[in-house]
Amino acid sequence: MKFICFKCQKERNNSNLYCSCGGLFRPVHDFRFSSDLKSNFPYVSKWVSLGETVTPLIERQGLFLKLDYFSPTYSYKDRGSITLISSLLGKLPEGSVINEDSSGNAGASIAAYASAAGFKPNIYVPQNASEFKIRQIISYGAKIHTVQGSRENVMESCKNAPGFYASHVLRPEFRDGIRMLSYEIMEQLNWHVPDAVVMPVSAGTLLLGVIYGFRHLLNSGEISRMPQIIAVQTEFVSPLYHRMEGLQYTPPDSYVSVADALVSQSPPLLDEMYQSLKGYGKVLRVSENEIINSRNKLARSGILVEYSSAVAYAGALKLNGLRPVVILTGNGLKSPSPKSL
Amino acid sequence: MKFICFKCQKERNNSNLYCSCGGLFRPVHDFRFSSDLKSNFPYVSKWVSLGETVTPLIERQGLFLKLDYFSPTYSYKDRGSITLISSLLGKLPEGSVINEDSSGNAGASIAAYASAAGFKPNIYVPQNASEFKIRQIISYGAKIHTVQGSRENVMESCKNAPGFYASHVLRPEFRDGIRMLSYEIMEQLNWHVPDAVVMPVSAGTLLLGVIYGFRHLLNSGEISRMPQIIAVQTEFVSPLYHRMEGLQYTPPDSYVSVADALVSQSPPLLDEMYQSLKGYGKVLRVSENEIINSRNKLARSGILVEYSSAVAYAGALKLNGLRPVVILTGNGLKSPSPKSL
Repeated sequence: MKFICFKCQKERNNSNLYCSCGGLFRPVHDFRFSSDLKSNFPYVSKWVSLGETVTPLIERQGLFLKLDYFSPTYSYKDRGSITLISSLLGKLPEGSVINEDSSGNAGASIAAYASAAGFKPNIYVPQNASEFKIRQIISYGAKIHTVQGSRENVMESCKNAPGFYASHVLRPEFRDGIRMLSYEIMEQLNWHVPDAVVMPVSAGTLLLGVIYGFRHLLNSGEISRMPQIIAVQTEFVSPLYHRMEGLQYTPPDSYVSVADALVSQSPPLLDEMYQSLKGYGKVLRVSENEIINSRNKLARSGILVEYSSAVAYAGALKLNGLRPVVILTGNGLKSPSPKSL
Repeated sequence: MKFICFKCQKERNNSNLYCSCGGLFRPVHDFRFSSDLKSNFPYVSKWVSLGETVTPLIERQGLFLKLDYFSPTYSYKDRGSITLISSLLGKLPEGSVINEDSSGNAGASIAAYASAAGFKPNIYVPQNASEFKIRQIISYGAKIHTVQGSRENVMESCKNAPGFYASHVLRPEFRDGIRMLSYEIMEQLNWHVPDAVVMPVSAGTLLLGVIYGFRHLLNSGEISRMPQIIAVQTEFVSPLYHRMEGLQYTPPDSYVSVADALVSQSPPLLDEMYQSLKGYGKVLRVSENEIINSRNKLARSGILVEYSSAVAYAGALKLNGLRPVVILTGNGLKSPSPKSL
């Protein structure tokens, strides 16, 4: 397998963040899917492990819920951190500084895997990041750098800091790890392709990783068609929705959303998301009320997820006649519950 | 299988909480272990499910860590709730009120499973219960009743309330479900009995459930010896430690511990714990500093647990020359991390 530039198709021959043309790299899966999971990630030779497991897939009123927060740092991001951080073992000396910018879940995940691998994580966060999520990041021994300004300012500070920039957005090894989620879903469904797969979308790593996985299975002849891919965004953060609808996107000047993990107003992977989704899917938008009601409805059936994950469930409730898989991405303790309902 | 009185051995023939002699009931496993997990719980005919999974067992510096919080409500208590609540299906009408008293994790777990089963959970909590844990309980649709006074006052209020008292401490179907944890550990260790199993002990449900499981495997000829069972208590709450050492126990008038799930100063199951542990194990005590340091040490290696779980790890660090299994019982987000370390 190789990594090529999304824009000019040139192959990456080192660990550069950008191609000489300015494009970002994407993975190319020019090999057959293997039922031996690790063989599907040939760029990892030694794996860091924090106790990853097959996450549950349960059925609830016609929906399949993939509880992908049964995971070491309690969100699906661990699927990307394990491949990205593992791929650095042997390439970077022990004790190397690893920089990452994140508003929360990716920061916690990269911090945990980097510490476990013997690196020194430094996590750059926006000033409005959830204090609760920051505390989790600190627990893993990471150093926190708070950056004033926009999400893009945070990324710039992180990119320019001394150390290795292990961006979960820009480094393709992160979202490529999320392929394993698609493999796992298909195994759990006994290789019956679901009508659709529904997920929250912000920076696009989940969306692209899931598409890579299904496309790889399709190209390998393991499945005969793609599921419909349904991205769900909030009313406040919906650049992909606008792009798909051919509308100009102007983010609101300020907003407060319960979905605090979905903050990417100008995602660097927007072009790739758009190209990939055009073939297979669509984008829905959900309101704050729909998110809150969805989170409460799920919780009252015993399944407590963070609001940013309830976004996907809210989207799935709008699909009539489909039996989708809904990816629930973050543990409900990630966003503290209200005092009363 | 049957339930008999711990004191007078009389068989329970209904769902009474106490025997006519005043004793509590305990399970008797008079059947061979089956590799079909559910067959080992013949008193459950229909199972409520929230997506339980095989929890990871990972090795770290000579210790096996059982991450038993990869679980629907993020603590090992789900193993007891699933058997207790499932056993009520078909016995209680839908919509029945289910009462439970708990300072946190058991309350959340019973609330989630009861809601999922179509019952109405009412959870009785002490006035000093963690607000964070109470919010989780509320999320599952439970009604909270705050009771002034001691932990024993809370139990009395709950016991006398209208509805079914689904006590995780007094109902043997709860701790009996924890047997499955021992089965799972043995499967993961390819049936090599570990030197020891180390766990935090408060009310005793984990301790007794784990012992039931190993004893059942021993009596079924699946293993040839018991592991050493090591209970760990805090300096502030150590009734079992005192009982084992033959010392008078006087709980402190007041204390604040980071291990907020370990609060049983006069556990109703103390006699059974003492009898069971006498044969196979011992009790260690750990200090607040040891707990905090253990939690931080684990977190910096990527494994974030709640302080009450770090108690077991702190205990395990005192065992020289043994390769124990350490049961980590609660997800680290259950007790919010400090702002800095």
